[in-house]
Amino acid sequence: MIFYDCSTAPNPRRARMFIAEKGLEIETREVSIAKGEQLSEAFRAVNPRATVPVLVTDEGTVLTENMGIAAFLEARCPEPPLMGRTPDEKGLVLMWNAIVEQQGGLPIADTLRNSHPAFKDRAIPGPSNYAQIPELAQRGKDRVARFYDLLEARLTESRFLAGDEFTLADISAFVFVDFARVIKMRIPEGNAATTAWFENIKSRPSASL
Amino acid sequence: MIFYDCSTAPNPRRARMFIAEKGLEIETREVSIAKGEQLSEAFRAVNPRATVPVLVTDEGTVLTENMGIAAFLEARCPEPPLMGRTPDEKGLVLMWNAIVEQQGGLPIADTLRNSHPAFKDRAIPGPSNYAQIPELAQRGKDRVARFYDLLEARLTESRFLAGDEFTLADISAFVFVDFARVIKMRIPEGNAATTAWFENIKSRPSASL
Repeated sequence: MIFYDCSTAPNPRRARMFIAEKGLEIETREVSIAKGEQLSEAFRAVNPRATVPVLVTDEGTVLTENMGIAAFLEARCPEPPLMGRTPDEKGLVLMWNAIVEQQGGLPIADTLRNSHPAFKDRAIPGPSNYAQIPELAQRGKDRVARFYDLLEARLTESRFLAGDEFTLADISAFVFVDFARVIKMRIPEGNAATTAWFENIKSRPSASL
Repeated sequence: MIFYDCSTAPNPRRARMFIAEKGLEIETREVSIAKGEQLSEAFRAVNPRATVPVLVTDEGTVLTENMGIAAFLEARCPEPPLMGRTPDEKGLVLMWNAIVEQQGGLPIADTLRNSHPAFKDRAIPGPSNYAQIPELAQRGKDRVARFYDLLEARLTESRFLAGDEFTLADISAFVFVDFARVIKMRIPEGNAATTAWFENIKSRPSASL
């Protein structure tokens, strides 16, 4: 297998953590988004949609998107489970993962990509250019504030997002929360449950990769 | 089990099709978004995030988000498989489903919700109000045009999105393409592979529910 990673971007980090939590070591190639390598001809021969992460399986299947990579690895290497054991647990993991992507990951990306000069005309990842929309950056910040409320409410009632066990949903949320420093939206002071959950996950070896 | 549906909205329709493809009949309650019932106190006691679809399992687990409902049903009722059999297939299904959600579903929703008067201050689903951003409606249309290119390229080389079998990814894409009529973005004339794929799925009993 070959894993195409990017050390500075949140979505590859989610896949990197998932791989580490499975105890796997996969040959890894760095794709520097800072240098625009995801748009190179060489990389687009691997993934024409010009995004990382990518996992090429032993069968030669090219998997993009965190969901594609996670679903493959969970089926190929079931232990330890990161996407639930029972049907109800499996549902809760993908439910919370989707909530975290839509209410956390997307607004953080909206804010960064629609405000930072480095993303001028790069408001959306992929091969096509899109102009920044400044109103979307502000809306993103408003949404991230509400995302922190949502996280705190959930983590006050549950040890991890999908229940008692650490899962894919926690990986996604942890990576997005950590990345939100780039838009200066850290966990609000006083959000004790979220802070404790974050520090707990930060202490896992997979979080330091 | 109880399924909370809305007959006019695309996301509940995806879950409805998935349930029908599994051959299941689940007690269903209609939540009228046109009447704002998703924001009612009664429904928010079920789903505080005020979105449909929702599936309440026999164990009482409240599952929101299409991914949560699909993951649960696939584990609970494995046949016929709609999320792949092998690890590689499972990866491809969730990969294509994610691509379709991000490159198709989201821009269609962006266009509708940021332009239509019925969605004034309702640019994002859920309990909080957000003002419309007209630039986002235009960007959505540009993105949907590229989504149609992407679909046509994929369906020229593959019978269904994730391979030879009909899956969750086809359900998502079919529902979004059908819904794109509301923003007047039908399958472009000449996109023969997409048109054939669409008509094929439209003939399934689950598509008429």
